[in-house]
Amino acid sequence: MEIKIEEDILKVNKEISDELNKIFSNKKIFVVNIMGSPGSGKTALLEATIEKLQKEFKIGVIEGDIETDLDKKRLSKFPIQIVQINTGRFDSECHLNAQMISDILPKLNLDKLDILFIENIGNLVCPAEFDIGEHKKIVVLSVTEGEDKPLKYPSMFRAIDLTIINKIDLLNHIDFDLELLKKNILKVNPRVKIITISAKEKKGINLWINWILKNQKNSS
Amino acid sequence: MEIKIEEDILKVNKEISDELNKIFSNKKIFVVNIMGSPGSGKTALLEATIEKLQKEFKIGVIEGDIETDLDKKRLSKFPIQIVQINTGRFDSECHLNAQMISDILPKLNLDKLDILFIENIGNLVCPAEFDIGEHKKIVVLSVTEGEDKPLKYPSMFRAIDLTIINKIDLLNHIDFDLELLKKNILKVNPRVKIITISAKEKKGINLWINWILKNQKNSS
Repeated sequence: MEIKIEEDILKVNKEISDELNKIFSNKKIFVVNIMGSPGSGKTALLEATIEKLQKEFKIGVIEGDIETDLDKKRLSKFPIQIVQINTGRFDSECHLNAQMISDILPKLNLDKLDILFIENIGNLVCPAEFDIGEHKKIVVLSVTEGEDKPLKYPSMFRAIDLTIINKIDLLNHIDFDLELLKKNILKVNPRVKIITISAKEKKGINLWINWILKNQKNSS
Repeated sequence: MEIKIEEDILKVNKEISDELNKIFSNKKIFVVNIMGSPGSGKTALLEATIEKLQKEFKIGVIEGDIETDLDKKRLSKFPIQIVQINTGRFDSECHLNAQMISDILPKLNLDKLDILFIENIGNLVCPAEFDIGEHKKIVVLSVTEGEDKPLKYPSMFRAIDLTIINKIDLLNHIDFDLELLKKNILKVNPRVKIITISAKEKKGINLWINWILKNQKNSS
């Protein structure tokens, strides 16, 4: 029974997500769903990204967290539109869903947006199953998480278009085989793109910016 | 409706967990549920722990993963009982539950166990709600995950008896305020114990071993 209900939930979610995707596409807003473990560096990536793109593009962020608006506050130094979803109100859901995005949409001025980033709940499992109207799904994975994560969390790595490997500034201080991680990612999903960065030291950010620009063009 | 069904699921889970707890207590097996984000160092902690305890105690491990038995293989160098649960078979559940533990119990010789560690799915959200017959719940949190995690994932930090802060060997290489993390943990749960360790460099392990020995005594 549990599985049947989950199928129904996913079906309804997909319908709402498809509607959202139409709205975003009509408004020519490129939407990226950013997923990853707690502490993988999703917000740090957004900081580095907004810094680069804010002059040229009108940027929006939907911050997803179970509790707190710490990440929203962290990004409030930028002149962008930011709204917060706290799933603590929704039985501490471990992922955002399309209905939550739909409900918060009136708080954003869509006519003044080119790119919308949605930072999902920190979790390598649940968010993979729920489309939220996005054009692209990415995962941020820190090198401190180990090389085996794609094999252990294959649903996530199958769902995404791009893996960002973050915190490469720590590579000299940990036992970590970057090539093995890449091999494991491609074993689970041979079509996924991989970009290695250090959000902290702003390394590799241009590759990610180029990925955004290229995909934004294709989606509009 | 979703919430009602979840309440029912949690109620049934609690009943099975209580039965398991009775079985473990009767057999004088001390059971610890180890939770934490992907890559926080749960398996590394187990390696350091088993090394210390294997001579004196008969140890068992239940490994929980969505896919793969990589962690089981990693621990197979020790002369202990290890069994694997893969939730990939159960609709990729993001947590272990009491029924899964009950189902796998026949594979363990309970008469030859003093301490049983259950390594849960890497996730700071879902496992917090599901008792699995354990005497104590702990979370392993890596310093690379940031100081804000207790505030963002309060259900987990409210559920646990002990926080192990891991990877302190990386403290010199990251911007991280250890005291702020401790403050945030205690803000969410004033009664929780905190131990800082480096599983990699085997630092602080004795504090954790002492915690196990003390609580093992109290539970039997």
